[in-house]
Amino acid sequence: MNTPENKLNLANERHLARMQLKKAVVDASINAAQTTRGLLLINTGNGKGKSTAAFGLLARSLGHGMKAVVVQFIKGRSDTGEEAFFRNAENLTWHVMGDGFTWETQDAERDKQSARAAWLLVCDYLQDETIDLIILDEFTYALKYQWLTIEEVTTALESRPIMQHVVVTGRAAPDALIAIADTVSEINLVKHAFKDGVQAMPGIEW
Amino acid sequence: MNTPENKLNLANERHLARMQLKKAVVDASINAAQTTRGLLLINTGNGKGKSTAAFGLLARSLGHGMKAVVVQFIKGRSDTGEEAFFRNAENLTWHVMGDGFTWETQDAERDKQSARAAWLLVCDYLQDETIDLIILDEFTYALKYQWLTIEEVTTALESRPIMQHVVVTGRAAPDALIAIADTVSEINLVKHAFKDGVQAMPGIEW
Repeated sequence: MNTPENKLNLANERHLARMQLKKAVVDASINAAQTTRGLLLINTGNGKGKSTAAFGLLARSLGHGMKAVVVQFIKGRSDTGEEAFFRNAENLTWHVMGDGFTWETQDAERDKQSARAAWLLVCDYLQDETIDLIILDEFTYALKYQWLTIEEVTTALESRPIMQHVVVTGRAAPDALIAIADTVSEINLVKHAFKDGVQAMPGIEW
Repeated sequence: MNTPENKLNLANERHLARMQLKKAVVDASINAAQTTRGLLLINTGNGKGKSTAAFGLLARSLGHGMKAVVVQFIKGRSDTGEEAFFRNAENLTWHVMGDGFTWETQDAERDKQSARAAWLLVCDYLQDETIDLIILDEFTYALKYQWLTIEEVTTALESRPIMQHVVVTGRAAPDALIAIADTVSEINLVKHAFKDGVQAMPGIEW
């Protein structure tokens, strides 16, 4: 009979059948994934959260006892919450290179020298098998402003230790970098408080 | 004269002029932003990094000495790097509610009860002025599966303390939630290692 109770039972049965099907599909994909290797991840796009997601990944990696390095190519400000929080973390080295966004420094030659110095440091880490994760924060600007060539960057990334993960953040990741990446997330802005006149809030923006 | 040196000087002057203009535009926007208030942020979309970005924000907030709460509505696994890393952080309370994705548990009624228990807890925090940041991780599923109504959720969020920040993560955030949010980032997948047969790697996926 078509009682409310019967309807509920039927709905529950349908839910169960649908979820069993979904579980089978998800399990099959998980079983098909067999390779393990160090990944190149890119967080790009115009939205908020590219660096923030990289710092979340950093917490996750450190939680697994992994050894990590952060190299920030553009120093936005010196009092960020992330740097304060991670400063004393074990297994982590944090480098802030550069002097700010290039429209703040207004000195193209100095910016280029800062970026090249940062890159030399990165090249050492990209040869070091003891480093499990390298975060290259705001790195795409170094390519955009041609402080580094895409060829030297892709060559160094592709010859890194096989199990080493690298995360690159920044707007407008070039196609040649996306081509060699394993996972690329594009973060787009749907809405931003800043546009409604809200100040950059500590703990949220910096 | 059109010597290489003159060309370089001209290029540098143009760079300086362009950057001065850019700085003026950026500074004007910053000066126009005057309000301070607690923000509602949403990380949505089908890409990787929604929860990860929220955990990066958590690190940032804790670095500023803020008091934070994480409520995970869906417990994916019990050995995540983020939970291990943040477990002993000061000023942080971490709740894992729920028993896994609904296609894993295959029990609609139990999932609903878990979600409602988590929501009651959240409602208390949403009345507590001493909490600076609340992260509602994988929260949109609770709306998608109608474990909670959008009305009760928006009402509770809108009556929270004025300086309290809330971050909601999960796919397919409903329009009514986006309507009351301050900042919404949509994270889309351009490319994912999983599709190339790479296993979920510790420190990256969990």
